[in-house]
Amino acid sequence: MCVWTGRLAALFGFLAGCAVSASGEIDGSWPMPAKNYANTRYSELDQITAGNVKTLRVAWTFSTGVNRGQEAAPIVVGTTMYVVTPFPNIVYALDLAHAGAVKWKFEPKPEPAAQGVACCDYVNRGVAYADGRIFFNTLDCQTIALDAETGKQVWRAKLGDINTGETITMAPLVVRGKVLVGNSGGEFGVRGWLTALDAETGKQVWRAYSTGPDRDVLIGPDFKPFYPQDRGKDLGVSTWTPDQWKIGGGTVWGWISYDAESNTIFHGTGNPGPWNPEQRPGDNKWTCGVFARDPDTGAAKWFYQWSPHDLYDHDGVNECIVVDLPIGGATRKVIVHPGRNGYVYVLDRTTGEVISADGFVRINSSKGVDLKTGRLISNEEKAPKVGKVIRDIAPASPGSKDWEPSAYSPKTGWMYIPHLNLSMDFEGVEANYIAGTPYLGANVKMYGDASGNRGEFCAWDPVQRRKTWTIPEKFPVFSGTMATAGDVVFYGTLDGWFRAVDARNGHELWSFKTGSGIIGQPVTFLGPDGKQYVAVLSGIGGWIGAIVAGDLDPRDPTAGGGLANAVTDLKGKVDVGGTLYVFSLP
Amino acid sequence: MCVWTGRLAALFGFLAGCAVSASGEIDGSWPMPAKNYANTRYSELDQITAGNVKTLRVAWTFSTGVNRGQEAAPIVVGTTMYVVTPFPNIVYALDLAHAGAVKWKFEPKPEPAAQGVACCDYVNRGVAYADGRIFFNTLDCQTIALDAETGKQVWRAKLGDINTGETITMAPLVVRGKVLVGNSGGEFGVRGWLTALDAETGKQVWRAYSTGPDRDVLIGPDFKPFYPQDRGKDLGVSTWTPDQWKIGGGTVWGWISYDAESNTIFHGTGNPGPWNPEQRPGDNKWTCGVFARDPDTGAAKWFYQWSPHDLYDHDGVNECIVVDLPIGGATRKVIVHPGRNGYVYVLDRTTGEVISADGFVRINSSKGVDLKTGRLISNEEKAPKVGKVIRDIAPASPGSKDWEPSAYSPKTGWMYIPHLNLSMDFEGVEANYIAGTPYLGANVKMYGDASGNRGEFCAWDPVQRRKTWTIPEKFPVFSGTMATAGDVVFYGTLDGWFRAVDARNGHELWSFKTGSGIIGQPVTFLGPDGKQYVAVLSGIGGWIGAIVAGDLDPRDPTAGGGLANAVTDLKGKVDVGGTLYVFSLP
Repeated sequence: MCVWTGRLAALFGFLAGCAVSASGEIDGSWPMPAKNYANTRYSELDQITAGNVKTLRVAWTFSTGVNRGQEAAPIVVGTTMYVVTPFPNIVYALDLAHAGAVKWKFEPKPEPAAQGVACCDYVNRGVAYADGRIFFNTLDCQTIALDAETGKQVWRAKLGDINTGETITMAPLVVRGKVLVGNSGGEFGVRGWLTALDAETGKQVWRAYSTGPDRDVLIGPDFKPFYPQDRGKDLGVSTWTPDQWKIGGGTVWGWISYDAESNTIFHGTGNPGPWNPEQRPGDNKWTCGVFARDPDTGAAKWFYQWSPHDLYDHDGVNECIVVDLPIGGATRKVIVHPGRNGYVYVLDRTTGEVISADGFVRINSSKGVDLKTGRLISNEEKAPKVGKVIRDIAPASPGSKDWEPSAYSPKTGWMYIPHLNLSMDFEGVEANYIAGTPYLGANVKMYGDASGNRGEFCAWDPVQRRKTWTIPEKFPVFSGTMATAGDVVFYGTLDGWFRAVDARNGHELWSFKTGSGIIGQPVTFLGPDGKQYVAVLSGIGGWIGAIVAGDLDPRDPTAGGGLANAVTDLKGKVDVGGTLYVFSLP
Repeated sequence: MCVWTGRLAALFGFLAGCAVSASGEIDGSWPMPAKNYANTRYSELDQITAGNVKTLRVAWTFSTGVNRGQEAAPIVVGTTMYVVTPFPNIVYALDLAHAGAVKWKFEPKPEPAAQGVACCDYVNRGVAYADGRIFFNTLDCQTIALDAETGKQVWRAKLGDINTGETITMAPLVVRGKVLVGNSGGEFGVRGWLTALDAETGKQVWRAYSTGPDRDVLIGPDFKPFYPQDRGKDLGVSTWTPDQWKIGGGTVWGWISYDAESNTIFHGTGNPGPWNPEQRPGDNKWTCGVFARDPDTGAAKWFYQWSPHDLYDHDGVNECIVVDLPIGGATRKVIVHPGRNGYVYVLDRTTGEVISADGFVRINSSKGVDLKTGRLISNEEKAPKVGKVIRDIAPASPGSKDWEPSAYSPKTGWMYIPHLNLSMDFEGVEANYIAGTPYLGANVKMYGDASGNRGEFCAWDPVQRRKTWTIPEKFPVFSGTMATAGDVVFYGTLDGWFRAVDARNGHELWSFKTGSGIIGQPVTFLGPDGKQYVAVLSGIGGWIGAIVAGDLDPRDPTAGGGLANAVTDLKGKVDVGGTLYVFSLP
């Protein structure tokens, strides 16, 4: 992986040959949405500080031309920024030396019918750079490699079928010459998978399904799960009623992290289908959990299930941040995972053992995690039933935190978590499977919980297992975040404010009103002029913004899977957009 | 007309009752797209100066949600900004005290079929404020009055019929309780008119056609044209072949100015139809000229024809700026009109006499204006012929300056003119009239002229009759402009740069890269905090930007009426957008 490092590099336009500078120079690039394999979204850049961020101002802007939910991270390599739009997934290369002048534009022209099977707007979470190429996915299930310099297509591969409800919305991760891509479509009765393509050719190297027999899941002799409930033959079949696993979800649409030392990737799996849990008795493996795998072969190393027999659409695909933490007098190699079900999990990444699991929001959908058995303790009172409306379930389906990624600062040792405070009423109904159509089996209505703040942005200490500070927000926080060595963290709001916050105390230092709502991922980078820049896309949409982007009827409490009901006041407050904002100090 | 004046008003939220402050306080509002009845687009605000404008930065932004050509001026009254989008012509009221938070949003839901008869993208040039109401037009020929405070509809009136090719794109002007609105559709064989509606009720008070018998044109005993060729009965019939005047154009889609002292409005008329001039021998009155009228009755006072028997689509609808100038030792009451045919005209506004007419661009389509007869001197060499391609005609059809309005600074005494340096090849062809379809009769291909700069932004001294400075631009300049007492003038470029220029010497002082191309109208105003702000919409489109907004094929030299061919390099350089940018000093 080639990235551009430091001020010296800036001055000489030098392109260094390694992801982390061996020279000790500051890494000024942002080559993948998560910034690095560890998924920390932390930059060593420190020109922008808690002291001077109040003078931050827009340096330049760029219209993506597509007014749909902008969830992508604009990545930066050398003097170029790469941005991908929502469907039709246009990729732009922007010249950082000339205020974002377009170097090239690539239009993949995906099948328009893909929009009809996208559950939650037509989002795309970003492109990835590796070895002179840009890799990205299209809504209609293609992965495409482009020459980063020219924008010419190197290869394209078709990975899934929109006729069965499959789409792709995730950003790929490129590891050891393989492009890792998973599918979306958990609300359409698809079968989830993660696929590795050869970065050179686009040929499939392996595919690991999230349900079905062990050979499909790539469970073999190296599979050593920590907990007994995850051991046994073909659990991806036996924890389901017959054949249900074939349409059982477990899609892999979230974040993948990688630990080079052990050569292991970590990826979550999505909700089981349908939502109505009474139609799928059993633990529904391997949905709503996390796999550790060998990226070369896909072979599973261990698995842990956040939510066995998920009751609430609590996908397990959120980021697993790779860090080493001082716990119990020792340095533990862990992954930290702020889960959709409301807990921040700290897992031993070598074994899959749960070291801690602590609620960071109001939770009544479960009663904690049993650290002996590793099992989520269910709350029978809140278990969905067909024909009965169960009221006030927290967190709601999008979870305490949906896809929007958190960050980790090694300087503070804290995580920065954008999140949601929503409850829901849930009524199970019989769902019938018809390929390529929604497969839910639930009438759901969501709303803000009693806190009055539907969103929050907090700092969380994963060692002390507590929230260190929090910022209440009127609207659910659905943007990513980013931390810097300048001790400033950034996030955005649904009504368009982009905020800079003191990493140490949560004081708001600066905010700027962008044109539309922010559900994008902030990044920071060193410009060709040696200055630190910050960038984010503004454009309301995604599941949470579908009420605006999809023009849903606010009078229908079940519109948008019931989530629209929680943000009816967003309509009329912001309108759709698609603009990239790049900021710098004067 | 109520506008908001000065800093004291800002502090107390006071709404003054007059357009120009009687108290001597600075008028901080911008209540109509042209700023004032004189159409000077000049603001007395002087906080932003040639000395400090280099620190100008984005204060906030707002996405209009519509990615089409944004030609509107965002107007400001009190603490509210009002913006209208291209079709579907949504109007927003934005709270200036809260970074543009939406106070209300009005969706008129015009007929989608209107888009099919819009010649040149789906633009709208702005709303107007008067007496507590917002007035605006929709593409499908409606005029709507809203309560400025609540956004509730007060009335709506239907003025035209899209089935005959009529649309409305202009900003209304409100004078003495009348809302003045004209139609668009000169390329569809419509018959042009200007209509006055009662501002209270929306009822039609009068309508003046641009062709046909005197009674339709509201030519009566008060009509006293300066030149003999404009005198005579029913010239709107006799200067046409029989019945051609019924489909002869002369639409009134541009700017209207008003002189309170003489109670006179000045409005231009558009091109005659079809473009092919051989199908309409005669002077084709009253197209391509300017009328002085009584706003109360519509009665014509005088008329002057910029381009009798127009050969090149040189509409006469550009602004007629009302100023008093020292000419020949006396102060003359004049209108100044930078015309599409390449001349800056200075006319005595009391009589319609041409005082001067000087080319401000390269012109070979005519040989000057005969100041004795007032008549444009034609150049037979460049006259279009059916079946023959006449090459290198300058200015091209969009003129040396299209709709994009200029400004006049009383401090410098100069006009600031955004303009185009384009030539064209023109071949006449037989056009057949079918209602509601294009009625052109010409194959046209446009391109940059030999200067190499397809655009220019210049200062023009209307007394000395010369260009005082000019800024060459790569792309045609299709944005409006605005002048201030701080001696700074602003304009934007098709590739998205918003520029501040020293009014006295044309030095570029500051520029900022907006997200899309700029074809909007900059404005300036005093914010609730007592600070001067500058605002402009960014979003490529309009006739010049149709190659991007309409995704025209750059390989077709006649696409977009031949204008797309002149800006093929715009495609891929900017993408569509729709974002309002508001700037201030730090």
